[in-house]
Amino acid sequence: MGMCTSADKKLLKFMKEKGDETSFHRVRGQKNKCQFGQQGICCKLCSNGPCKITPSAPRGICGATADTIVTRNFLRAVAAGSACYLHVAENTAKNLKHLGEIRGDIKGAETLHELAASFGIETADHHEKAVQVAQKILADLYKSKDEKMELVEKLAYAPRYERWKELGILPGGAKAEVFDAIVKTSTNLSSDPVDMLLNALNLGISTGLFGLTMTNLLNDIMLGEPVIRQAAVGFKVVDEAYINIMATGHQHSMFALLQEKLAAPDVIAKAQAVGAQGFKLIGSTCVGQDMQLRGEHCANVFAGHTGNNFTSEALITTGAIDIILTEFNCSMPGLEPLAEKYQVPQFCLDSVAKKANAHYTPFSMKDAGELADRIVDEALNSYTSRRSTVKIHIPRDHGHDDVLTGLSEKSLKKFLGYSWKPLIDLIASGKIKGIAAVVGCSNLTTMGHDVYTVELTKELIKRDILVLSAGCSSGGLENVGLMSPSAAALAGENLRSVCESLGIPPVLNFGPCLSIGRLEMIAAELAAYLQIDIPQLPLVLSAPQWLEEQALADGAFGLALGLPLHVATPPFVTGSTLATQVLTSDLKELTGGQLIIEGDFVKAADILEEIISDRRKGLGLG
Amino acid sequence: MGMCTSADKKLLKFMKEKGDETSFHRVRGQKNKCQFGQQGICCKLCSNGPCKITPSAPRGICGATADTIVTRNFLRAVAAGSACYLHVAENTAKNLKHLGEIRGDIKGAETLHELAASFGIETADHHEKAVQVAQKILADLYKSKDEKMELVEKLAYAPRYERWKELGILPGGAKAEVFDAIVKTSTNLSSDPVDMLLNALNLGISTGLFGLTMTNLLNDIMLGEPVIRQAAVGFKVVDEAYINIMATGHQHSMFALLQEKLAAPDVIAKAQAVGAQGFKLIGSTCVGQDMQLRGEHCANVFAGHTGNNFTSEALITTGAIDIILTEFNCSMPGLEPLAEKYQVPQFCLDSVAKKANAHYTPFSMKDAGELADRIVDEALNSYTSRRSTVKIHIPRDHGHDDVLTGLSEKSLKKFLGYSWKPLIDLIASGKIKGIAAVVGCSNLTTMGHDVYTVELTKELIKRDILVLSAGCSSGGLENVGLMSPSAAALAGENLRSVCESLGIPPVLNFGPCLSIGRLEMIAAELAAYLQIDIPQLPLVLSAPQWLEEQALADGAFGLALGLPLHVATPPFVTGSTLATQVLTSDLKELTGGQLIIEGDFVKAADILEEIISDRRKGLGLG
Repeated sequence: MGMCTSADKKLLKFMKEKGDETSFHRVRGQKNKCQFGQQGICCKLCSNGPCKITPSAPRGICGATADTIVTRNFLRAVAAGSACYLHVAENTAKNLKHLGEIRGDIKGAETLHELAASFGIETADHHEKAVQVAQKILADLYKSKDEKMELVEKLAYAPRYERWKELGILPGGAKAEVFDAIVKTSTNLSSDPVDMLLNALNLGISTGLFGLTMTNLLNDIMLGEPVIRQAAVGFKVVDEAYINIMATGHQHSMFALLQEKLAAPDVIAKAQAVGAQGFKLIGSTCVGQDMQLRGEHCANVFAGHTGNNFTSEALITTGAIDIILTEFNCSMPGLEPLAEKYQVPQFCLDSVAKKANAHYTPFSMKDAGELADRIVDEALNSYTSRRSTVKIHIPRDHGHDDVLTGLSEKSLKKFLGYSWKPLIDLIASGKIKGIAAVVGCSNLTTMGHDVYTVELTKELIKRDILVLSAGCSSGGLENVGLMSPSAAALAGENLRSVCESLGIPPVLNFGPCLSIGRLEMIAAELAAYLQIDIPQLPLVLSAPQWLEEQALADGAFGLALGLPLHVATPPFVTGSTLATQVLTSDLKELTGGQLIIEGDFVKAADILEEIISDRRKGLGLG
Repeated sequence: MGMCTSADKKLLKFMKEKGDETSFHRVRGQKNKCQFGQQGICCKLCSNGPCKITPSAPRGICGATADTIVTRNFLRAVAAGSACYLHVAENTAKNLKHLGEIRGDIKGAETLHELAASFGIETADHHEKAVQVAQKILADLYKSKDEKMELVEKLAYAPRYERWKELGILPGGAKAEVFDAIVKTSTNLSSDPVDMLLNALNLGISTGLFGLTMTNLLNDIMLGEPVIRQAAVGFKVVDEAYINIMATGHQHSMFALLQEKLAAPDVIAKAQAVGAQGFKLIGSTCVGQDMQLRGEHCANVFAGHTGNNFTSEALITTGAIDIILTEFNCSMPGLEPLAEKYQVPQFCLDSVAKKANAHYTPFSMKDAGELADRIVDEALNSYTSRRSTVKIHIPRDHGHDDVLTGLSEKSLKKFLGYSWKPLIDLIASGKIKGIAAVVGCSNLTTMGHDVYTVELTKELIKRDILVLSAGCSSGGLENVGLMSPSAAALAGENLRSVCESLGIPPVLNFGPCLSIGRLEMIAAELAAYLQIDIPQLPLVLSAPQWLEEQALADGAFGLALGLPLHVATPPFVTGSTLATQVLTSDLKELTGGQLIIEGDFVKAADILEEIISDRRKGLGLG
């Protein structure tokens, strides 16, 4: 059975040795792609369908054109992606509210005070402050569509807010906006392509400000603000001497209490009683990235981050995982047969991520203690029952020991001496030509697992463009060494000298995809420092190997922010000339953003570099 | 250019004469259907896709099986359909709230008092009562998913409520449930097919009780309760001597004030000043059915109902329509080029139903007066500018003058002498063998426009089964004469004698698809009278030519109620053995409901008759 390739050769070698079927193996069987689906010109909204657009059938039975079908499909996908992030934001706010109510441990007091101040909350009591912050957010999420969200103005960069207001794309209640977009894209409702594309921007705004930015900040309050440090990554972090708990998802706050429990002497004693040294949380997908980002606060129980979405299946095949906790995507269906084969019980903590052969144990902050106890017990049981029968094989050469992690809008600024000036100066002097945020998912069909992401990143750093990464892309980049200081050698002469003098890699790891929100905060802070608008910055965005509906909602935020957004594989819109024209060109006049579709990584780097050069010229830099 | 056929031969003849391209013409160009799409085994949730399931590729790249892909697609479609109905329910509740606040005209005081009493609202003031009823509904719609809706228990038939509780499918806040279903069906989230199918039932409950039942009752309060009467239907109702306003959608309360304005002497005088006799609202799609249902309250301005979804394009080609108001589906994209050709300006009153070449004039109850004035002005302008250039051709032989309309759970009971006993007695005696609700949409691909619906209905009445209809199906059935008293001649001997003695047709018209909720109220009332549960009734449901996502959400309610639900064309689920098995069989043990997929109308009638016979036996009837 053939496999698709990966930028991560050691991972590939391990998977070949194991021979278990994974997503890598299924690529070949799915290589004949439906062109109608890829172009977005297939419609399944009614029983007259599926209809597809062809030269001889330019309309579906109902009369829908390619433009209508494409934009309807696109808006629905963006709405679903937005819903995903907002679900995470809502749960996170509820968790903060509960934490405040029970007067629990607030680890990020600074963030709490800043957020409360910006929301106009005046109470001095920290816990009451946390409750009120959460309530404000929940109230905004639950507003109806005809009420604009209050916090958008407080969270958004002012010039952007004004532009969005002019364009009429300020969102009403975030959940109601998603809801209405789903209605709009149902059978025989909207057929206005331009309206649907603009609607996607509106959803992008609430996704970005609430789903991304706000979730990060609330997690900072509950779990601790990121602190820059070095960490080990890859399968090498897995130690069979421990009872290993694999986590997949995006909702770190669900693990707050479990992290504490696992470090408690009585719980460690339980592990020791069955012959293990203790418990370890094994990071996988974005929740693992978030644990790594905040590793400073959970170093005793967090083993390290193993890899991104498409690394999770292989992780199970090491045999060293004793229990899987899933609470959100990316929790792939492919985990199911492997968990069965390797006798790993699965527990889903959120009904939206239920696996067919998993136990469903709903998380609530109120019962988090009991749930953590149950997880400990189940992990102990699994360990004792499976370790005698399942062979363990951990590729100890997989990964790196010196990945720079813990980067956030705050920790980076702190690193720079509590000011953006040093970074601005480096950009102004040309030592750093510009910044590229290489973010989002990994997929398997754009040249293979992480291949494009890694190659594009190499091209960018070679051109003295500093790369910031968040999402599964960072999982790929760290596992191939680009986030280790030695990667400076791959950078252009100028960037290399900067990296070497500071002891940092040319690719900075901001952690989970949620941290795309942190990158966008940095963009806003840089723009504010320079007193310009975001689209003037020498800063570009690329989600080269975007995979999910969530990525499309992220992307919509990038476009609303006025950033150039590159993708290697287009979203399913190319069947509409109008949609392609609006997204890749007309948008420049509206928000300043533009979608760039370029499947060749050298050409993509050329385009991104050219935009950065143009922006530099616009700012009067050489 | 070939056309698909219709049960409505006069319509077909007219369309052939006109020669304008409509949905009927586009069927041929779309006749090659994608088998993967039809079976629901195509997935476009990520950039690795589209993936499709084949014997040699039993999983998508991520590992999703046919069962996962099918149920994910299905649940998303049900969620979207549910969202549509809930959007209508929410707007209707907001309109009622505003009406109460401005102390406007309450036309259905009886319904208001009943509803308020059942909700435990104690104020004596009618308007305050209306406000409180609306508030209760809005509060329930906006609850979060982890709070169960309060009104479900008050609205549902008690034995059903208990069953749903046992099954764990009682819905939380209706909008949040839709939202979470969208999240659940996004990339790499749920992969549990059974959970997703049960989730569809949960959505069905809120759709049925809030989207359908509640919307009807609120409209009864604002627009007046249905009163049984005879009415003319078909294109013959269009009179070129008037300025004709065509309405499509589902939100009758948006037209309340306009209806009043159009009958005002000063407004009629404006029409007369430009040479017309006045204004007429021309009913099309479900909102037209709702106007017809309440014709008693708007007889002076409502011309009559012309036909269902796929009749709307032809209606424009008469040339006699001067303005189109769309506020929801079914507002087909195919209206756009015809409106342009026939110089008919389009105004969309709800952003979710925006047509590409239409004006968007958002409706709000607060500004309803101004909007009505604008519509009057625009209609006048259009009339004066277009009538001289556009040729009018109305097929005056299309339709019937004696359709029995105005049926509701209340008006029917009143007709029966304020008791269900006469109907129960007729069923017990075998004069009426049972009841079939033939409901839902029309489509064009199940034997053509309304063909299957009409043939199945004929088969059922021939077997002495009384047919109740709501939705586009009723539009088709009335236009071919089955809702005129003379249709009794087509019924079996027993049913015929009943109809003839009462002067009613064997197919009763309950109006729009929203009235499927009325049919389900009748089912509950009959069951309550007999002190049995709904699945014991000799009552079956068929949505033979279902079209839209909304129909799937309706259907989910039928299945939750425990009704046998027949469809001629399966929803896109047949690619999953598990989904098919659960829906067509296992569900009987859960809710008592079952999906029956049968494409031959005689066989379908056989199956439905057999179920009715079995139910009769179960009740000890011959």
